[in-house]
Amino acid sequence: METRARLIETGRRLFASQGYNATTVADVAKEARAHPGSLYHAFPTKQDLLIAVLEDYFAQFDAHVLEPAWAGIDDPIERVFALLALYRKFLTDTECLFGCPIGSLALELHEPDPAVRELLARNFANWIARVQECLDAAGSRLPVHIDRQHLASFVLTTMEGGVMLARTQRDLAAFDAAVAILRDYFSLLETVGARGNYGRAWLG
Amino acid sequence: METRARLIETGRRLFASQGYNATTVADVAKEARAHPGSLYHAFPTKQDLLIAVLEDYFAQFDAHVLEPAWAGIDDPIERVFALLALYRKFLTDTECLFGCPIGSLALELHEPDPAVRELLARNFANWIARVQECLDAAGSRLPVHIDRQHLASFVLTTMEGGVMLARTQRDLAAFDAAVAILRDYFSLLETVGARGNYGRAWLG
Repeated sequence: METRARLIETGRRLFASQGYNATTVADVAKEARAHPGSLYHAFPTKQDLLIAVLEDYFAQFDAHVLEPAWAGIDDPIERVFALLALYRKFLTDTECLFGCPIGSLALELHEPDPAVRELLARNFANWIARVQECLDAAGSRLPVHIDRQHLASFVLTTMEGGVMLARTQRDLAAFDAAVAILRDYFSLLETVGARGNYGRAWLG
Repeated sequence: METRARLIETGRRLFASQGYNATTVADVAKEARAHPGSLYHAFPTKQDLLIAVLEDYFAQFDAHVLEPAWAGIDDPIERVFALLALYRKFLTDTECLFGCPIGSLALELHEPDPAVRELLARNFANWIARVQECLDAAGSRLPVHIDRQHLASFVLTTMEGGVMLARTQRDLAAFDAAVAILRDYFSLLETVGARGNYGRAWLG
């Protein structure tokens, strides 16, 4: 891996796991086994590295997250849960030290520069949009009354909240509980969708 | 407010809004209008202040969060949504800069000292336990197959994820969407609960 890519990868990992403010440029250079001079040359300030991390995350999301998550899975609703299963793997691979790079920065940074905040929001919006494509593809399996963008956003809040609790408890139980409850909700939605109606007619 | 209480309140607010690592002891003293000497006397290290913040949050959760949220509300399921409405108010009161004090620290701190992590986990467990009391009180309005501890934990992940997105987007829309979807799920659960059965018999 070339130095620039290695610095970005290391920055993303350290910012997410130990915090942006707790990470020094020297930490990143050391961990990436790069000469500090090459880091300062590529990224004159820590925020320049942060912006590169967030742009790279956006650009690589399909290749590094969605493609491994969705390999061999065609069912659109199963793709939603396969994406959540990949985050579970991130947790198990790190003994539950994993933090979502975007979510962790979103909570840590206070009034970040507009360029940073816009990149955080754009990464969340991309995650939601890709999940919404699955929900749209599910068509009439889900009831018509459900706003699919809202539901996609809800899948993201479930992932982020589940990662947060698992990381704090150093235990997968809360993540698994959140996914199990979301699965129950989807089962109910699919039952309602299969009936082809919703609301008073169904409730009566 | 006495100095010690003011220091704790200020620490909680600054740690949550701008991050623990970005907050200096001098920031806390200045913002609390306390003499730095009195801060160092009360809390020799920043982590001592952090532990006091987390212990205080646990001790004050009923008085500062649940009591205002639940004033005048007896219905146990409405209490769940009233608690979420209070977090919405925290967001509107701060132009969406609010971060949950526990959630923000949980993501920022990397391998915190055991005393800190245990206090973070204890605060989450308390939130979940108090919501679970509501869900237990809802009795047969919710279907028997639902694990109420899991559902309470899910309410927490919804709140934490919704706060994270609203804070990033500086907009309530994602928080409101998450609560609307959770409300839809509860409506479905109550419909199933009212039928008094679940599973194949209901699905058929």
